[in-house]
Amino acid sequence: MTRDIYLDNISVEDAIEKWFANLNFDVSTEQIDIRRATDRVIAEPVEAEISAPQFHASAMDGIALKASKTAGVSEMNPVKLKQGVDYQLIDTGEPIPHEFNAVIMIEEVNQLNETEVEIEAGATPWQNIRTVGESLVKDELILATGREVGPYELGLVLEGGITEVTVVAQPEIAIIPTGTELVAPGASLQRGQMIEYNSHVIAKLVTKWGGEVTRKDIVPDQYQQLKKIVSKASESRDVVMITAGSSAGREDYTAEIIDDLGEVIVHGVSMKPGGPVILGKINDTAVIGVPGYPVAAALTCRLFLKQVLYKLRAQSVPEARKIVAQINTKLVSELGVREFVRVKLAKLDGQLLATPLSRSSGVMGSLVEADGLVSISEFSEGVAKRDKVKVELLEDNNYSQDKLLISGSNDLTLDLIKNELAQEEIDLLATATGSLGGITALKRRECHLAASHLLDPATGDYNQSYLVKYLADRELVLVNLVTRQQGLMVRSDNQIQVDQIEDLSHDDLLFINRQRGSGTRVLLDYKLEEAGINPAQIKGYDRVEYTHMTLAATIANGESDTGLGVLAAANAFDLEFIPVATERYDLVIPKEYWTDNRVQQLLKIIRSESFKQQVEELAGYDTEKTGQVITSG
Amino acid sequence: MTRDIYLDNISVEDAIEKWFANLNFDVSTEQIDIRRATDRVIAEPVEAEISAPQFHASAMDGIALKASKTAGVSEMNPVKLKQGVDYQLIDTGEPIPHEFNAVIMIEEVNQLNETEVEIEAGATPWQNIRTVGESLVKDELILATGREVGPYELGLVLEGGITEVTVVAQPEIAIIPTGTELVAPGASLQRGQMIEYNSHVIAKLVTKWGGEVTRKDIVPDQYQQLKKIVSKASESRDVVMITAGSSAGREDYTAEIIDDLGEVIVHGVSMKPGGPVILGKINDTAVIGVPGYPVAAALTCRLFLKQVLYKLRAQSVPEARKIVAQINTKLVSELGVREFVRVKLAKLDGQLLATPLSRSSGVMGSLVEADGLVSISEFSEGVAKRDKVKVELLEDNNYSQDKLLISGSNDLTLDLIKNELAQEEIDLLATATGSLGGITALKRRECHLAASHLLDPATGDYNQSYLVKYLADRELVLVNLVTRQQGLMVRSDNQIQVDQIEDLSHDDLLFINRQRGSGTRVLLDYKLEEAGINPAQIKGYDRVEYTHMTLAATIANGESDTGLGVLAAANAFDLEFIPVATERYDLVIPKEYWTDNRVQQLLKIIRSESFKQQVEELAGYDTEKTGQVITSG
Repeated sequence: MTRDIYLDNISVEDAIEKWFANLNFDVSTEQIDIRRATDRVIAEPVEAEISAPQFHASAMDGIALKASKTAGVSEMNPVKLKQGVDYQLIDTGEPIPHEFNAVIMIEEVNQLNETEVEIEAGATPWQNIRTVGESLVKDELILATGREVGPYELGLVLEGGITEVTVVAQPEIAIIPTGTELVAPGASLQRGQMIEYNSHVIAKLVTKWGGEVTRKDIVPDQYQQLKKIVSKASESRDVVMITAGSSAGREDYTAEIIDDLGEVIVHGVSMKPGGPVILGKINDTAVIGVPGYPVAAALTCRLFLKQVLYKLRAQSVPEARKIVAQINTKLVSELGVREFVRVKLAKLDGQLLATPLSRSSGVMGSLVEADGLVSISEFSEGVAKRDKVKVELLEDNNYSQDKLLISGSNDLTLDLIKNELAQEEIDLLATATGSLGGITALKRRECHLAASHLLDPATGDYNQSYLVKYLADRELVLVNLVTRQQGLMVRSDNQIQVDQIEDLSHDDLLFINRQRGSGTRVLLDYKLEEAGINPAQIKGYDRVEYTHMTLAATIANGESDTGLGVLAAANAFDLEFIPVATERYDLVIPKEYWTDNRVQQLLKIIRSESFKQQVEELAGYDTEKTGQVITSG
Repeated sequence: MTRDIYLDNISVEDAIEKWFANLNFDVSTEQIDIRRATDRVIAEPVEAEISAPQFHASAMDGIALKASKTAGVSEMNPVKLKQGVDYQLIDTGEPIPHEFNAVIMIEEVNQLNETEVEIEAGATPWQNIRTVGESLVKDELILATGREVGPYELGLVLEGGITEVTVVAQPEIAIIPTGTELVAPGASLQRGQMIEYNSHVIAKLVTKWGGEVTRKDIVPDQYQQLKKIVSKASESRDVVMITAGSSAGREDYTAEIIDDLGEVIVHGVSMKPGGPVILGKINDTAVIGVPGYPVAAALTCRLFLKQVLYKLRAQSVPEARKIVAQINTKLVSELGVREFVRVKLAKLDGQLLATPLSRSSGVMGSLVEADGLVSISEFSEGVAKRDKVKVELLEDNNYSQDKLLISGSNDLTLDLIKNELAQEEIDLLATATGSLGGITALKRRECHLAASHLLDPATGDYNQSYLVKYLADRELVLVNLVTRQQGLMVRSDNQIQVDQIEDLSHDDLLFINRQRGSGTRVLLDYKLEEAGINPAQIKGYDRVEYTHMTLAATIANGESDTGLGVLAAANAFDLEFIPVATERYDLVIPKEYWTDNRVQQLLKIIRSESFKQQVEELAGYDTEKTGQVITSG
């Protein structure tokens, strides 16, 4: 087998044009009951079969009469009318008897007795009468070709006496997940295995975009087996999606199989994520080879699958809503590649800011967290901080501006706060930049508040001297969030015998560090100096993780042996914990935001008993000072 | 029975406040499979059960190696590496063997032979490696309480090793349609009967807003029967909707039944349409008495039901998208009543105009045609033409600005044009204002073009002298649409013996006229004068309809005996037709719009053979001049 490791590099637009030129978008139709046609597209004009109303009907509850009977009538000159002779009681919707031509509403009728009324105002002919066909007239066009059926369209069609309509057939899509390393959700994982969820995400996107979907079982990377399934699916579907196997891996058969059964039209688009996408066809079926990374897969669907689905439904793709915002940090991007960056929108200092989220195509959470996408042109090397960018909102995103941006040190209690704030409809975006990163972000006005636990070895105190050094020009309030234990984590068998900081220099031990600027790194370096250990002696000192939890996970999974972190992280992964220090973990809040509702809500939460209780349950935390103002000014 | 004919008159906001103060919005929850949880609301925070990836994985297809093996390597100083010793082939997603710490992508590997490669650039430690937990770390918060589940959320939850989540239970809504005069869709109608479709519309709205719906069969206006069904429904549902019977009719039992079983909290809101709405409760169940007019029913759902549904889902109602536009015609509104006017948005002369549609609450089509709603405050008597108004877009409305506004005479061929234009994604809004009304609308710059068939008795010609008189200051192109026959229509038994215009003065005949300013009225008056008939002699001369089709429907349904209209309308209702005249029906197009794409598309359509053929099939039409320019300048 020859490995085709060099892919095409054409633009998104050229790729679609080239692909579409090879596809056949014949629209097929079917007759269905309008009550089952929600979101379907009308294929043949719908005309009323009956008029509505079919008779002159009363538009009010009241009495029907001849208008001429009230000629000259006024408050000073009322007229008495007899039931059955001059008038008849009538309710809304009832037919007007032929001998009458007006309705007076009941509120304006003075009932004298069972059979007599008095009227104090003249009626004009045809007042309060819905005439034949007011709503609809037989043969009138109700829905034009191409109209999507919603609740109101349904009502109008039923009113027109119609129950069957001709609609565009739903495009049928097959999704084939491939990969020997994949297992279905719910299974437990062996080393090297991953849960296959792309096919589920794509299936929901297809439904959202009006297609009908069949999800196949996971197919291992076996050429003949995969080919057979692709071939069969392409016989009866409008689109076949093969997820993963589109790249240059040794077992990436997708391109070869499409080529074998039909034609690869594009393999590789100059975009990121999703570059290795394959666009092809097998007979009249469009085929997409979807890259395996989840964000790449989602973007491929958005850019290519969605276009095909709407074509097959004879609709143009609804324009995504776009919002202009300022980018919150500089973004460097590769020339010649269009990059789609997930961003979160939030107001800060009166400006709408777009904060970029993880740019890794493997981080599904970035799509969940994101409000929209910023597209960085292939002709640009990136955008400068505070440049204006167009943010294309994601599906159904009714983005809220009630967001709170926190930057700096990462702690498990931020998740608790996020969940509590969510119930007040405030969305907390915590960016793990390390304690010093948070202070820098505050200085650069990139966030509302920072989280920090920076030890000053000279004083033994936390944070204050750093604020004086880096944020002297801003009035700040330092509020304690928690006091927490830091310690060395090791797998519970502890075969490598770590009992104290001094043991870190042992030759047979692989350490995992936290990044520069993090409070934990500052603490470690202080402890190493105290113990007289040169960092160069520690194997793995240069390898870093960015949060306590990823550090703990790395140790638990045997990729490293030990590292410094909080007790809760160690507990989460059943690691042994050797206490090293107890530290103060604070929130740094600029005074200008102190009265902001979002900040006040946050303070209310962390000062509540229920929050403190949740924190205590995590172990290794002390909430004695939680919510207290440490310094202010 | 006492009829409660005077309703409350409180504002929408006060009504909701009063009602909600009496309701109980306890949220119930349930555990379901995340794959069935689309659009559901998370009720308990979802935390990852596993990390992803669970191991250090290759981020690329390539070779895994020790980075140190490439120290000092460059293009000038390449290094040879041996498979199995120095490196190992690796695909995206595969675990990195513990002895290696970097991946070089396959495109940068120079394969020398089966077991040997050459490398020309140094690798840095941990390059192209996804570390443990890059996407998700065990115990990390994946979805906060209150989050709605979409395709991406589904993916993230599955990736976190979770299949079951706790979500807010779907609110359960029962819809009970009532009315002895109502029949289900598909049935044929007796005089006085109407098709019940409100319950179907409401059911779809409930689904859209996240509720679960049960639609009951139509209940006749019988107190005990209705009471029993309402009582039973209220036992097991969160909301019971009773459609119709909310007003002051003799058989409007809704309020009484709610009062009997529970409590009427509000009956009557100062709004239009939908004023007679009832808001009540029976035990813990919210009850809404929905007015019977379809637009009133839809608005009631939008204003009240939607609020309750979102409350029950522990969500706030998503804010509707609002757009500022200029109102296209003056709107007079009643002081003290908030009126919601359906409007259509279209660009004209560079301005976004909101053209009001029918304000009758019985015209369902106005909701289908509308892009949004303009709310006229209860403190306002209306808005002046070209006043700025806020238009609240209707659900899912991705309104297009590609609309063509035509005003003036009504003709059946406009429906054909509308359907053809729809396929070019151009939306035609035809307003039936009569020929002279169309010319006036052009003069007032309320539309793009007008349709007219105004006979000049002095010359026998059509339209031109009127354009000179009313639109002398504008350069216009007059294009023929069709030539058509006008005649007197009578029911096919023709018991009233109409053979010619002269017969219209007969005493035993009830005439139905067209409105002043319509071409047909002008033609009639000319013919009457010719015949020496005084309009005062004609019974029904003062009673008008606005289109050929409603006129024909009125005659067919026995509400009138005869009137003047086109052959196609007569044929549609199986009426006899006594020809009176053949007339030219033209389009009046200002020169400034002539090159506009929308106008050009319209011209292309009417000049096409397929259009002419469709017109000829209608009968009574001649397309000999169709599409021809009559005058220009």
